[in-house]
Amino acid sequence: MPVTPEQQAEIDALRSQPRQTLRTVAEGMESHLYTAYPVLDHGFVRVVDYMGDDAAICQAARVSYGKGTKSVQNDEGLIRYLMRHWHSTPFEMCEVKLHVKLPVFVARQWIRHRTANVNEYSARYSILDREFYIPGPEQLAAQSVINNQGRGEALTGDEAARVLEILKSDSARSYDHYEEMISDEGKQGLARELARMNLPANIYTQWYWKVDLHNLFHFLRLRADSHAQYEIRVYADEICKIVADWVPFAYRAFEDYRMGGETLSAAALTCVRRMLKGEAVTQETSGMSAREWRELQEVLG
Amino acid sequence: MPVTPEQQAEIDALRSQPRQTLRTVAEGMESHLYTAYPVLDHGFVRVVDYMGDDAAICQAARVSYGKGTKSVQNDEGLIRYLMRHWHSTPFEMCEVKLHVKLPVFVARQWIRHRTANVNEYSARYSILDREFYIPGPEQLAAQSVINNQGRGEALTGDEAARVLEILKSDSARSYDHYEEMISDEGKQGLARELARMNLPANIYTQWYWKVDLHNLFHFLRLRADSHAQYEIRVYADEICKIVADWVPFAYRAFEDYRMGGETLSAAALTCVRRMLKGEAVTQETSGMSAREWRELQEVLG
Amino acid sequence: MPVTPEQQAEIDALRSQPRQTLRTVAEGMESHLYTAYPVLDHGFVRVVDYMGDDAAICQAARVSYGKGTKSVQNDEGLIRYLMRHWHSTPFEMCEVKLHVKLPVFVARQWIRHRTANVNEYSARYSILDREFYIPGPEQLAAQSVINNQGRGEALTGDEAARVLEILKSDSARSYDHYEEMISDEGKQGLARELARMNLPANIYTQWYWKVDLHNLFHFLRLRADSHAQYEIRVYADEICKIVADWVPFAYRAFEDYRMGGETLSAAALTCVRRMLKGEAVTQETSGMSAREWRELQEVLG
Amino acid sequence: MPVTPEQQAEIDALRSQPRQTLRTVAEGMESHLYTAYPVLDHGFVRVVDYMGDDAAICQAARVSYGKGTKSVQNDEGLIRYLMRHWHSTPFEMCEVKLHVKLPVFVARQWIRHRTANVNEYSARYSILDREFYIPGPEQLAAQSVINNQGRGEALTGDEAARVLEILKSDSARSYDHYEEMISDEGKQGLARELARMNLPANIYTQWYWKVDLHNLFHFLRLRADSHAQYEIRVYADEICKIVADWVPFAYRAFEDYRMGGETLSAAALTCVRRMLKGEAVTQETSGMSAREWRELQEVLG
Repeated sequence: MPVTPEQQAEIDALRSQPRQTLRTVAEGMESHLYTAYPVLDHGFVRVVDYMGDDAAICQAARVSYGKGTKSVQNDEGLIRYLMRHWHSTPFEMCEVKLHVKLPVFVARQWIRHRTANVNEYSARYSILDREFYIPGPEQLAAQSVINNQGRGEALTGDEAARVLEILKSDSARSYDHYEEMISDEGKQGLARELARMNLPANIYTQWYWKVDLHNLFHFLRLRADSHAQYEIRVYADEICKIVADWVPFAYRAFEDYRMGGETLSAAALTCVRRMLKGEAVTQETSGMSAREWRELQEVLG
Repeated sequence: MPVTPEQQAEIDALRSQPRQTLRTVAEGMESHLYTAYPVLDHGFVRVVDYMGDDAAICQAARVSYGKGTKSVQNDEGLIRYLMRHWHSTPFEMCEVKLHVKLPVFVARQWIRHRTANVNEYSARYSILDREFYIPGPEQLAAQSVINNQGRGEALTGDEAARVLEILKSDSARSYDHYEEMISDEGKQGLARELARMNLPANIYTQWYWKVDLHNLFHFLRLRADSHAQYEIRVYADEICKIVADWVPFAYRAFEDYRMGGETLSAAALTCVRRMLKGEAVTQETSGMSAREWRELQEVLG
Repeated sequence: MPVTPEQQAEIDALRSQPRQTLRTVAEGMESHLYTAYPVLDHGFVRVVDYMGDDAAICQAARVSYGKGTKSVQNDEGLIRYLMRHWHSTPFEMCEVKLHVKLPVFVARQWIRHRTANVNEYSARYSILDREFYIPGPEQLAAQSVINNQGRGEALTGDEAARVLEILKSDSARSYDHYEEMISDEGKQGLARELARMNLPANIYTQWYWKVDLHNLFHFLRLRADSHAQYEIRVYADEICKIVADWVPFAYRAFEDYRMGGETLSAAALTCVRRMLKGEAVTQETSGMSAREWRELQEVLG
Repeated sequence: MPVTPEQQAEIDALRSQPRQTLRTVAEGMESHLYTAYPVLDHGFVRVVDYMGDDAAICQAARVSYGKGTKSVQNDEGLIRYLMRHWHSTPFEMCEVKLHVKLPVFVARQWIRHRTANVNEYSARYSILDREFYIPGPEQLAAQSVINNQGRGEALTGDEAARVLEILKSDSARSYDHYEEMISDEGKQGLARELARMNLPANIYTQWYWKVDLHNLFHFLRLRADSHAQYEIRVYADEICKIVADWVPFAYRAFEDYRMGGETLSAAALTCVRRMLKGEAVTQETSGMSAREWRELQEVLG
């Protein structure tokens, strides 16, 4: 259960009290505010606040380009132009604040995106809850045999059972010991900042994470990508759905130019031009390495 | 006149259309939204959007410190604690977007604060307006004779008149020539991106500037300080008034711990401790340089 | 003359005193150290210091990927892999510090790249020199009639002569007046921080600019691009030559994947795939706007 | 043993091969290069590269302040002036790259300093070593009874023994299971990116960390402080020793103005001024809260 009854009560209370504002309101986002969308077995993502909408992106662009933007007739056209030509600053004019509950090993990947504001629950001050990520059977994957950072097929049979057993029992034992060590009943009780070191990386933590739309798109491009680790990708996927309702023009442009786009190298472009002229190009005649040639074939599908 | 009739009409329209939101609303900030507060002779500052309030700072801190924050009884106490102990991340959870019109030489100082988002009116794309900052008589100050970066007394008499005459006539001539160069009536017309190089640094530009509260406080501490150049200080002063209404607890803590506070060095602290014990400390016995000693005397008033 | 005799003497002295170090040394960069390469009429770029080389990029990547990097056989292959897959952090492990002299309107574009360290000559403290950028005849370009931010043909005849006359005489007059205003001979003398506002944007300033290789590549991709304004592009071009000698593998990968590469949108990729299968795709059947279609034709050249 | 024989051989080789450079050389830093200084039971810090020295800070400041810096006679005086007046940009002109081996829970605190470059060993790609931090007896501290984030006395007797037993046995069991899960002998073998979730936060990781001197000082001020957790403070302390040899003037100024200095609030300054005039100020007459008054008494010692 990702949300406690207390949290749900707080969410319900906040959602029942609309107030008046003179600010820009994004209706698509209002419908998501505060709702905790479940991710993995105990995690969630929920929008705590936001600033701006598609129109705010255009407003900022029009400050920059002044009368020069008149040639682009409408907001969606302008947003597509900005995205296509890597004019990133207008997208920075939107901001979102999320409350995320996530396993520590996911948090460690996530935090590498430095251009964001973070307040994480502190295990120096407070006691962590007994909640651990245990993968579902279909996610219990073998090491890829072709890719150092990839996954292969799901484990099966005894091996799957044994791995699940290990993850569950080690989590439980670590937490039992954590509780025992910090307990001050009849003894001193180990400092929390030390006791936490016994907890494994599948324990859940939570944080407030605030980021502008440009940097959020960068995060999503990397983390909603098929090469991202599944456990962070499901968070990115959930955020994608929210962003699609918040800034629909910007999100469609992002899908077309970033998520669905591909960057071709100078060498790859030369090959494509030759092919389009009817030449039968092979890896040998392409001037590209076997690896790059294979990657190009995948792109040209 | 800092705001054009068109801009005023737009402001009036925006202010007359309250909408419903589920987000946090800061009433003190709603009263400022969109209003352009005049600064210098043609400049202004106006709030375009904001996120969060005092309670949002506490909310983020309570995610971090969990049950540990219970010992601080109320929001103002918690905010003062955070400010005093340089816990900056909760303040980053508030954000503000300003529309600022300002002279280019002020913009050049302002932009050195890197942790902010900016969309500036582009003189590559568009044509700048004929608006120049001309200092009022009381601001037409002489070079300080004791401080390389300071101002002395206001210029007087013929010298003041001559300086004003220069600033006004050079501004006018530069702009006349700018217009002449870009004009394509009967000729090609120089590219805007080149013609702008003839314009002096007192011409006005404008931008959208978005920043989180922690970094805004850092900006205000440096730019609302008495050592800041007058022409940027008046913008910082205007922003201070707005922030005081937006996040009153945080602003009071900022005034007490940052604007009104002073950092004493280890050597200065040693002197103060000796003085408090009744010792008559002099510069010679202080172990401090003459300059540092003088600065300490000023702090101890 | 971009470098004063005093500066040249200092450069000569520094270049004549090799010292011993245990650090990584990039021979290709040592040959550039301190030499001021002229840019525009009075500007220059010179390397003041650097950290790392191609091997340092690989060293950092091998910390990250551990035994996983063994499958990439050599340094150049690894660097190309990192660049192709947007693994940017190893490139951040190289750093360069440049001393640049440049016109103020170029500095204003340059400073928008926020992830860098800057110390600029301060016209609040000190007096600027009488040096202005005056474009050469071939750079005195008309406004583009098809692109708001572009240049067209060079001006000719009387118009060119008139523009040159304006730029030269306004620069000279502004500087004469600047000197007159700050002079304290027989009068008070205007504060430097005020007098500077009379100076036009083609006056030269200078700064130390320190940046890591990843962010430098981002700068170069935008500023060495054919759409960048000529006056900043010539600085980027000069820096490209230096970087090519400093980190030759990384620079070649940058040329292939970034400068010479192109990002195709999802829609564009679909078109290319259809074309490669022999279909005759037109703008009408492409699902793309006229503008995007035209841009794709240019890429597929 | 923090360094493997292979690593030591590499260090010895690097330290035996001085090369010639035209760059600034900091002799105090050359003596530290590559040497791995042990921290905690298996960790270390070692300098991999550096840029700049005390003179480089002054050089950058003199670009900024031009002739204005002539009034400060020598390098140390200038550096103290810059530190005292929070002129941070010249300190950003020095850079250092460290290789650090540290427990994961320390790494999680460390990474919150965002303005730095990081390449961390990836447990997605590679297999972590069997190395865990086990606190020494004097560091096995009880939770503080007065401070949510502090430590009290060291645990004693049976409780200490029991905690040590837990930490050791859980670390060993977790790692045994990690090895078992990833093993592909006779089975598929769990993906590394999943298996790592079973490892506790006291396992060691390592990274390259590159940072400028201004941001390093900020890190050291917070992490070498007596309120920092012991396990990160010992890293900060070790880095302090290295920095003291690298940039001795800057480090002394840092000690005096930052580490040894204190910021007094406006209210505290008013109290100090009253006391210095001979008034007997009490908490009741101070206008300060009991907590702030107590903190002031500690500062005034």
